[in-house]
Amino acid sequence: MSGATGLRVRAFNFETRGPGDVSGLKGLLDRGEVRAEDVVCVLGKTEGNGGRNDFTRDLAMGALERLLGARLGVPPEAVQDRVVFSFSGGTEGVVTPHMIVFVREGALPQAPSPADRRAEKRLTVAVGYTREFEPGEIGRMPQIEETARAVQALVQELGVDDPSDVHLIQMKGAIPSFTHAEAEAAARRGAPFRCDMAYSRGASALGVALALGEVRREDLSDEVVLSDYRHYSAIASCSAKPGLRRTELLAFANSAYADGELQIGHGVLSDLLDVAGIHAVARGLGLQLGAPPDPAEVNRIVGVFAKSEADARGTVRGRRHTMLSDDDISDTRYSRCVLSSVLAATLGDTRVYVSTRAEHHGPQGGGPLAMIVRAR
Amino acid sequence: MSGATGLRVRAFNFETRGPGDVSGLKGLLDRGEVRAEDVVCVLGKTEGNGGRNDFTRDLAMGALERLLGARLGVPPEAVQDRVVFSFSGGTEGVVTPHMIVFVREGALPQAPSPADRRAEKRLTVAVGYTREFEPGEIGRMPQIEETARAVQALVQELGVDDPSDVHLIQMKGAIPSFTHAEAEAAARRGAPFRCDMAYSRGASALGVALALGEVRREDLSDEVVLSDYRHYSAIASCSAKPGLRRTELLAFANSAYADGELQIGHGVLSDLLDVAGIHAVARGLGLQLGAPPDPAEVNRIVGVFAKSEADARGTVRGRRHTMLSDDDISDTRYSRCVLSSVLAATLGDTRVYVSTRAEHHGPQGGGPLAMIVRAR
Amino acid sequence: MSGATGLRVRAFNFETRGPGDVSGLKGLLDRGEVRAEDVVCVLGKTEGNGGRNDFTRDLAMGALERLLGARLGVPPEAVQDRVVFSFSGGTEGVVTPHMIVFVREGALPQAPSPADRRAEKRLTVAVGYTREFEPGEIGRMPQIEETARAVQALVQELGVDDPSDVHLIQMKGAIPSFTHAEAEAAARRGAPFRCDMAYSRGASALGVALALGEVRREDLSDEVVLSDYRHYSAIASCSAKPGLRRTELLAFANSAYADGELQIGHGVLSDLLDVAGIHAVARGLGLQLGAPPDPAEVNRIVGVFAKSEADARGTVRGRRHTMLSDDDISDTRYSRCVLSSVLAATLGDTRVYVSTRAEHHGPQGGGPLAMIVRAR
Amino acid sequence: MSGATGLRVRAFNFETRGPGDVSGLKGLLDRGEVRAEDVVCVLGKTEGNGGRNDFTRDLAMGALERLLGARLGVPPEAVQDRVVFSFSGGTEGVVTPHMIVFVREGALPQAPSPADRRAEKRLTVAVGYTREFEPGEIGRMPQIEETARAVQALVQELGVDDPSDVHLIQMKGAIPSFTHAEAEAAARRGAPFRCDMAYSRGASALGVALALGEVRREDLSDEVVLSDYRHYSAIASCSAKPGLRRTELLAFANSAYADGELQIGHGVLSDLLDVAGIHAVARGLGLQLGAPPDPAEVNRIVGVFAKSEADARGTVRGRRHTMLSDDDISDTRYSRCVLSSVLAATLGDTRVYVSTRAEHHGPQGGGPLAMIVRAR
Repeated sequence: MSGATGLRVRAFNFETRGPGDVSGLKGLLDRGEVRAEDVVCVLGKTEGNGGRNDFTRDLAMGALERLLGARLGVPPEAVQDRVVFSFSGGTEGVVTPHMIVFVREGALPQAPSPADRRAEKRLTVAVGYTREFEPGEIGRMPQIEETARAVQALVQELGVDDPSDVHLIQMKGAIPSFTHAEAEAAARRGAPFRCDMAYSRGASALGVALALGEVRREDLSDEVVLSDYRHYSAIASCSAKPGLRRTELLAFANSAYADGELQIGHGVLSDLLDVAGIHAVARGLGLQLGAPPDPAEVNRIVGVFAKSEADARGTVRGRRHTMLSDDDISDTRYSRCVLSSVLAATLGDTRVYVSTRAEHHGPQGGGPLAMIVRAR
Repeated sequence: MSGATGLRVRAFNFETRGPGDVSGLKGLLDRGEVRAEDVVCVLGKTEGNGGRNDFTRDLAMGALERLLGARLGVPPEAVQDRVVFSFSGGTEGVVTPHMIVFVREGALPQAPSPADRRAEKRLTVAVGYTREFEPGEIGRMPQIEETARAVQALVQELGVDDPSDVHLIQMKGAIPSFTHAEAEAAARRGAPFRCDMAYSRGASALGVALALGEVRREDLSDEVVLSDYRHYSAIASCSAKPGLRRTELLAFANSAYADGELQIGHGVLSDLLDVAGIHAVARGLGLQLGAPPDPAEVNRIVGVFAKSEADARGTVRGRRHTMLSDDDISDTRYSRCVLSSVLAATLGDTRVYVSTRAEHHGPQGGGPLAMIVRAR
Repeated sequence: MSGATGLRVRAFNFETRGPGDVSGLKGLLDRGEVRAEDVVCVLGKTEGNGGRNDFTRDLAMGALERLLGARLGVPPEAVQDRVVFSFSGGTEGVVTPHMIVFVREGALPQAPSPADRRAEKRLTVAVGYTREFEPGEIGRMPQIEETARAVQALVQELGVDDPSDVHLIQMKGAIPSFTHAEAEAAARRGAPFRCDMAYSRGASALGVALALGEVRREDLSDEVVLSDYRHYSAIASCSAKPGLRRTELLAFANSAYADGELQIGHGVLSDLLDVAGIHAVARGLGLQLGAPPDPAEVNRIVGVFAKSEADARGTVRGRRHTMLSDDDISDTRYSRCVLSSVLAATLGDTRVYVSTRAEHHGPQGGGPLAMIVRAR
Repeated sequence: MSGATGLRVRAFNFETRGPGDVSGLKGLLDRGEVRAEDVVCVLGKTEGNGGRNDFTRDLAMGALERLLGARLGVPPEAVQDRVVFSFSGGTEGVVTPHMIVFVREGALPQAPSPADRRAEKRLTVAVGYTREFEPGEIGRMPQIEETARAVQALVQELGVDDPSDVHLIQMKGAIPSFTHAEAEAAARRGAPFRCDMAYSRGASALGVALALGEVRREDLSDEVVLSDYRHYSAIASCSAKPGLRRTELLAFANSAYADGELQIGHGVLSDLLDVAGIHAVARGLGLQLGAPPDPAEVNRIVGVFAKSEADARGTVRGRRHTMLSDDDISDTRYSRCVLSSVLAATLGDTRVYVSTRAEHHGPQGGGPLAMIVRAR
């Protein structure tokens, strides 16, 4: 094989002027720099509240659907069958609304041989799905195990040496619909539905942790979910979506069989103020940031992905915080603002993707951090 | 002279359990560690919104008035004639509500001689007032010049070698009341009132800048106020208070004639993400913070005081922010949250006093930072 | 007996200038119009958010404690053993912050005889308490039944002919504290704690309904609470308070043995827009309101007390509302604003006391309304 | 004349399931009940905050542009040249998000003669524009006079007998862009720009008032704008839009030469609680509402349009309100919630279009109300 036919993932990080601004991707397509067929996923932050009445994500996804639909020759509503969108509302504080377009060109070798290996591993990405879930499975072992199975299947596709090459599993977690009667029947059977966003996020993260060896099978049970936060993934990032029957997965890894100039790394932040944890991830990717961050190094950063949570114990580093007793502003907005600010200050880039609610995503009060950079 | 009779300023930083929690100071007084007569000022952050309907400051000050009034043998309403309170609402994100009690014991030598000088300068604090202002003076040269005069008078009391020893002038800026008819008459005279919070803060800061040599007299005029932000103070910190006829000033400096273990330093942050600026102030005070911050060094920090502002140009470090176009959450809450998060992460302490609106306090989008630490 | 020795309840409705403004009551006491010993309760609306970080209630109650403590010769912290305070935060929209001071003078005849009866019934008020609750009793039949017992005991004290004379039971519902271990043990026993605000409010209301014949004993069970909203009280008004071991009750009724000029009536509003329901209560009290309301009739109104709730079905009068899908502003603030506006417009008075969360207080989406007026 | 060739305006009020829901209009078009060419304007309320970061209006208008563009055979971005959209964000409280589609079919007779007159006047609607404005004209007499001219031109097109037949002028007010240098030059000339939303709304309303005889020419001057609120229109409804060079106008009137079943009426509400004012408008249109409103009469209501404002004097009906001192929730949201609630309760319909900021729209604290109903 030759590099010309190998797999290459490219990523383009566009600052947006508003939620529906897709001019960055449009320019790429218009100039022929990217083919619509190669766009594999788009992740972005929009300037909404990240809650139920956040319509900014709809604006962004609608604009992408119309742009890509026209280029792909499919109706807008069919675009999301081909391209995964993951938009998170809430650009609190200094966060710059932005979207990152991932383009996957070429393919991994069918039967990779040692001769196909590059000197350095490079970013690869794959898309997968779980089977459809029953409401009673959500938040329990069946969801964990099926998610783990789907992750392991993805790992096979990524061309990685082992699970340690996988650094981010971005998920839209299933929350199948159900009737009130079904819920009551389940409660009577002694297995009340856990079919909500928190449970779906928590079980999805534990599924990733199981697949990638972050937790042991024998440490998991229905009881652990949303209860024993010692068990978590540092790689998962899940948002749950009511009405979704199966979980969508996006896996990012480094592969010795991939070309391109991008690499991914990850780590876990122990709390919202964990500057040392951020530096550790950066160092692992060869970034020499300094304070203030060296602009040349900052320019190597392509994507920053983290999960935030206001520590439920009411303290950060042993001192009281007030995020959870404020009835004017949601703790989700505060925790995103805090972590985004610390990331932006440390990394020198305000285009950070921090989403919130982090059950079993890193330890209580902390969360996972993944970064994609241009290799030197 | 002997150290026993010298001036000593001590400071006690208490985490509070709620806005009216004064148990920290009560304990100090009950245990005889501090005499009520020596309490010179209390600065604190309370968990309100920092706006017009923030009643948490009233709770804190009312509780202090009752506690200190009983110990001083004066009615609660007379306490603020003796002790200056400066409370700022808004503990967004990880900020821990807290209050810092400053105690001043002994006195500077009446006629200081070289023999009175200590090897190292130590914290000193003094309280002063401007004369009462007319509404038409606010936001114009008369306010600037009278504020400068009051600052210079304070400098004389502080026992400092020169203005460079002064590191923080905390002010409650005057906003005298006026009638609609007076305002209309002023407008007809071609000198419309600027008697509002923004102008009073801006002119107060410029007054400090003039007094301490940060700006030149010839660069100032009525036109400069709230217009030419190249002129600013890195030492001022002003909140304006409607109904106040004169400005209250609290000056913090280092003096070679003071004892105690505290020192103050300051610097200017170029924007909300200026980690290097924070490190510079810390280094100037001999703190070896590291990342993560060394707990032994963090324990030396007694007070952190800063001003924040969402950059009016709509960008931070060249990229768009959305703080100024959000009609659900005020930019004051965002800018406090961002700077507090960055300070807490960098300094390892969530008890940071960040207040907002920073006209002529540091450059556009940036602001002053002062820190008080225990000398090694 | 003679009117001179009879029971008389007077009520004074003071508009406040801020949460800590008790000048209205102070004036009454200073002028000798009311004796501190006769103040039985104070109900009020303060301009906070009505949530966890609403400190306006503390300001109001602290100011009342200091005022009444000085007049009663007891420490401020002992005042609430003698006088019941019921403050509700949230004066959304046109609501005027206010407090209503109830003064009870004289006493009911010990052994009332037909000769003691007045031509018309007049307002009477009494204070009572349940026994202390165990955490496992909250939200279940034991809380319902003990609340009912306490209400029936109060009815005996009120000098009423029968339960139909009782028009408002204002409660602070118990929520005893418990440990995590206790909660887990209860869950293992198959009776998980319901020890939260919603359950305590719901069971308190059902207790009132049981005592006053609004529901039948056989229709109640643990399962009904927060589940079958066909069962409710039109007389209860409960706010639950974490840490409170027993429920405090304030009963308002009309008695043939009471003097004074006040009368109370109540009704149930079917939804937030039930103008006809408001008119029905007003008419029942002899008010001839008209549209616009006749000022002379409006002046007869002394107190208006209601409970509001955003209909959980997502509709009002068959059409969609968006109160429950807004993550910027709480539905509690919206529902209070809506009902307060409709009450103020219909009754011609902006001093209305609407508190929110109305589980088993009136039908789903509706709630109870009580009014106190000066008899003609 | 014949009905077949006459003008007929029909209106369809659709409850929406979300901001981008245009299924109501789509159904009309799909079923052939309405031709896209006849759609003259769409007014609607969407569930945003009504502020700068309200993207719900964009969603609604984008969806309409795509739907109508496809049916009209023009690109989506050309639709607003043919159809006027007026969307207002903010469905606080019980307001049901909805849109009202106005369809104009046929035409007025070219040279109307007495023989063309119908027995009863019916709704007619016309669209117009001012010329483009210079920034210095906004908020001053030139904007007032040009707006008046445009209104008078529209009156000619409406087929009305005299200005008293005109009941609603819905406007998007011009706010041309300008440079900082232009603003400074204007200030130096002694005529500082008033080119903001408040001034554009105020001058637009005064322009309507002048055209329709609500104010006299000699009572108007630059000084009156945003200053003397005795002068106002009860017919204008203006939202200003930054970047718009000319004002768009939509005029609704009753004409003796129009067919159809709709009629419009209007009145002025003296404050947010003016139930009598609402009843007066309803009665003027022959509605017999009652309390509760008679459903048969409620069903005759097709559109309700009002402007709200929190009274700047801080009181409603002589008592304090707190809408203007709340830094958590904007007074715009409160005033819309209050007036919407009162309208919905009085009229029995939650589909009310209340927009906020009402400078010179009705008296201080009050505002105009227009209603469109099906004639009996």
